[in-house]
Amino acid sequence: MTMNHPKGMQTPIDLGLAHSSLRARRMGIHSLQEALVFMRTDCHVCLSEGLSSHSRVLLKTDGHEIIATLYQVRPELLADGEAGLSEAAWLRLGLAEGAMVRISHPQPVDSLSDVRKRIYGHRLDDGGFRSIISDIVAGAYSDVQISSFITACAAFPLDEGETVSLTRVMVDVGERLTWDNAIVLDKHSVGGLPGNRTTPIVVAIVAAHGLTMPKTSSRAITSPAGTADTMETMAPVDLDIAMIRRVVEKESGCIAWGGAVRLSPADDILIQVERALDIDSEGQLVASVLSKKIAAGSNRLVLDVPVGSTAKVRTAQDAKVLASRLSDVASVFGLSTMIIVSDGSQPVGRGIGPALEARDVLSVLQRSPAAPEDLRQRACVLAGALLEMAGAVQTGQGAFIAAQTIDDGRAWKKFQAICEAQGGMRTPPMAKQTQPILASKAGYVDSIDNRRIARLAKLAGAPGSKAAGVQMHVRLGDKTIPGQPLCTVHADNTGELNYALGYASANTNIIRIAPK
Amino acid sequence: MTMNHPKGMQTPIDLGLAHSSLRARRMGIHSLQEALVFMRTDCHVCLSEGLSSHSRVLLKTDGHEIIATLYQVRPELLADGEAGLSEAAWLRLGLAEGAMVRISHPQPVDSLSDVRKRIYGHRLDDGGFRSIISDIVAGAYSDVQISSFITACAAFPLDEGETVSLTRVMVDVGERLTWDNAIVLDKHSVGGLPGNRTTPIVVAIVAAHGLTMPKTSSRAITSPAGTADTMETMAPVDLDIAMIRRVVEKESGCIAWGGAVRLSPADDILIQVERALDIDSEGQLVASVLSKKIAAGSNRLVLDVPVGSTAKVRTAQDAKVLASRLSDVASVFGLSTMIIVSDGSQPVGRGIGPALEARDVLSVLQRSPAAPEDLRQRACVLAGALLEMAGAVQTGQGAFIAAQTIDDGRAWKKFQAICEAQGGMRTPPMAKQTQPILASKAGYVDSIDNRRIARLAKLAGAPGSKAAGVQMHVRLGDKTIPGQPLCTVHADNTGELNYALGYASANTNIIRIAPK
Repeated sequence: MTMNHPKGMQTPIDLGLAHSSLRARRMGIHSLQEALVFMRTDCHVCLSEGLSSHSRVLLKTDGHEIIATLYQVRPELLADGEAGLSEAAWLRLGLAEGAMVRISHPQPVDSLSDVRKRIYGHRLDDGGFRSIISDIVAGAYSDVQISSFITACAAFPLDEGETVSLTRVMVDVGERLTWDNAIVLDKHSVGGLPGNRTTPIVVAIVAAHGLTMPKTSSRAITSPAGTADTMETMAPVDLDIAMIRRVVEKESGCIAWGGAVRLSPADDILIQVERALDIDSEGQLVASVLSKKIAAGSNRLVLDVPVGSTAKVRTAQDAKVLASRLSDVASVFGLSTMIIVSDGSQPVGRGIGPALEARDVLSVLQRSPAAPEDLRQRACVLAGALLEMAGAVQTGQGAFIAAQTIDDGRAWKKFQAICEAQGGMRTPPMAKQTQPILASKAGYVDSIDNRRIARLAKLAGAPGSKAAGVQMHVRLGDKTIPGQPLCTVHADNTGELNYALGYASANTNIIRIAPK
Repeated sequence: MTMNHPKGMQTPIDLGLAHSSLRARRMGIHSLQEALVFMRTDCHVCLSEGLSSHSRVLLKTDGHEIIATLYQVRPELLADGEAGLSEAAWLRLGLAEGAMVRISHPQPVDSLSDVRKRIYGHRLDDGGFRSIISDIVAGAYSDVQISSFITACAAFPLDEGETVSLTRVMVDVGERLTWDNAIVLDKHSVGGLPGNRTTPIVVAIVAAHGLTMPKTSSRAITSPAGTADTMETMAPVDLDIAMIRRVVEKESGCIAWGGAVRLSPADDILIQVERALDIDSEGQLVASVLSKKIAAGSNRLVLDVPVGSTAKVRTAQDAKVLASRLSDVASVFGLSTMIIVSDGSQPVGRGIGPALEARDVLSVLQRSPAAPEDLRQRACVLAGALLEMAGAVQTGQGAFIAAQTIDDGRAWKKFQAICEAQGGMRTPPMAKQTQPILASKAGYVDSIDNRRIARLAKLAGAPGSKAAGVQMHVRLGDKTIPGQPLCTVHADNTGELNYALGYASANTNIIRIAPK
């Protein structure tokens, strides 16, 4: 085993724990939230600290310190005295290339004993969840440890009290918005359907009635477009808390990117590991949804639950069960909820992809004759529910009045005003290249695969290329004739267009045609 | 987003799932058992497959296929059309530099639904554990998923039936040794103490009585020496199953490295994740220990359980509980067990490190007057228990007769014969450099920190440098005078010697001296 002696490591007295320093090198490895550090197997720090692959190590700079997971590497990959850092580690330490990082054993993470307590069957109180969630947000947990916490909360399910505690703690560790108004509205959709972009329309309608709706939305993680991606093609969404406040005070509503404000940051971390495990325990789903809304200062929530074979919720019964647990917990925080079960059998509207979905939104607000009716109706149902919950209209009148608010132009006017307040309205970009996918035979459309249509849009470049995606020309039940366009692929360059078309030609039944 | 077109990717028809090929590059990243693949964020395969960091991906060559966890990287780290592989991925695929690897979405891992079943409170039968453990051994699970399985088995503890199933399945997925003899002996120590190297002595004594003891041992993982590391300084230990059989048929016993034969390979994987979580559920500990022994064909087992404040088992009561669960499960497999609770308060013998421990073993077997009495006694107690379990001696006579077997030279003769049969006896190497650590004051030794003594030996280079480690000169209660050597650091080069001495000078109470 060879030894490396970087500067300042000559004398034994320099070899105390706090003095094992390495030059930081940005590896550019995206490891989601988990901070990774790469050190040579023959690195003197690994030796002197007794570190091996998967060791948790403390990284210190003058300003910051984080805990990272160690991967040892062959000498070829790093120079003597270098430590490679993943993006998460690099950014959290706020490093400059070549900066020195001190490396040592971290103190034991105390809250892991709370996780073990939970594993061994003891319920946790606010304090227990608080220490765990704080440490997770501080990056003190490896994904393997987060996985253990999530599993323990599913194997021995959270009771209502624990769900309340977890929700409260997830709110407390993040930023929080507060409003003077008595009523603050919000909206959430479980398990996105492609093109289900009702939020900008809902906010415009509700705000047009002078009701407060400070909406924060996410960018796409695995889908071709998130509401924030779509809205960004029409106006800036990267608003800080002060800006959100100004927009909402002026126009009653906003559609901002949630990532710019740290509302329930723990949720963003837990969700990534839950996805890897493909377990969503009810307690965690409830805490996840509610913590974001409570942190946003909402007290009236409409939850859109698309039910369908390819949607997250499969049956109306499942939707009911989820609804009751959710409203019970929400009520503890003074948040009243209404669940709207909707059809999840096919994409909503025509566009799939940020700009294409934005044009659907605009056509509805602008009352274009070509506006997709399903998108308009879904938005009116959700906005109507909010109008009713706010007591602004009589029960049963909500959807009708929401539609009126579109028809008389108030929603469009309000939406323009919101865009201006957020930094100026924009025109969604058009794709440089488009190519239709044609029907091979006569018949009718008997199924549309949500998952693979979304995949096709991502192949075309969405959401990376804002203009890219898929424009649908048919819906379930439509008759087809050979050669008729079923949908059109939009892309910014030939490469992406070809990948999408190649995938389509290899998957001819994404839009399945049955003989008459 | 730019697109890369490696050879053979020109036409859309080449873009089907099975045809996304990249050139393999060995990254030299040690990720323990988890296979990792690194791909550029702008890689056409990530785009066309819709892959993102932490996606599980299927890697195929003509010969092999594995599932790996994806980390996306900045373009700087890899060339166009390259995929970087961790050591685990590289070796499992048996790749040559520059070979093409086909990358696609893996089929869902069915057994994960068994894990979810277990999480949601359903017990598993042989079939459930079999599918899970087979997939884990095949590398189909990420560490995050293994963590979830381990946690589920702790949060909703394995009952005896499940523990039996898990043990059986762990045996079945690995190789297995069988013996004609009616009685096959084995020995295991829970939570190693530094220098607790009784195995070579125990095997020599037992084999000298003509009893069968095909012992497989591990190399050090976090300790300064494993039994295999120590034995290797005296004879080859890298024996395959045929060789183990030859040695045991000739000499009744062997001391081989378990890593060369795949006895309970699942155990090697689960243990790494359990360590990261710092949870050892009783059920898994029992399955872990017993699966190795059953796979080795043993039917009589002595378990050495050192109890002490820095040992794995803290109290005699805990040892009792563990003992009863362990013997209940063992009996199902026709394996009878005896637990020996021993003192875990300080290192055993004098040497800590492969060659230094080997010299302790040799001095005991050679009846040198300087032989460490504690090591000799521990070995005799364990060997004696085995002699009694085998019915070779009367109950109560075992330890005495074991000592006689050393004293009359039969153990030493047998040990030499075993070493010859394993490939030839060797002389443990001497370190090139040594330096004593001296007592600072008069008094008596009132504590020795097992953990930090082990750390000191690793600093000096153990087990990487076989000759490196620490030689103890004092034991608890010994009187000291200023300047008297407490221990001596052995190293192969000045660098390692200095790191060890530097650590010692920064940690002066590893061997604590209290005033008289």
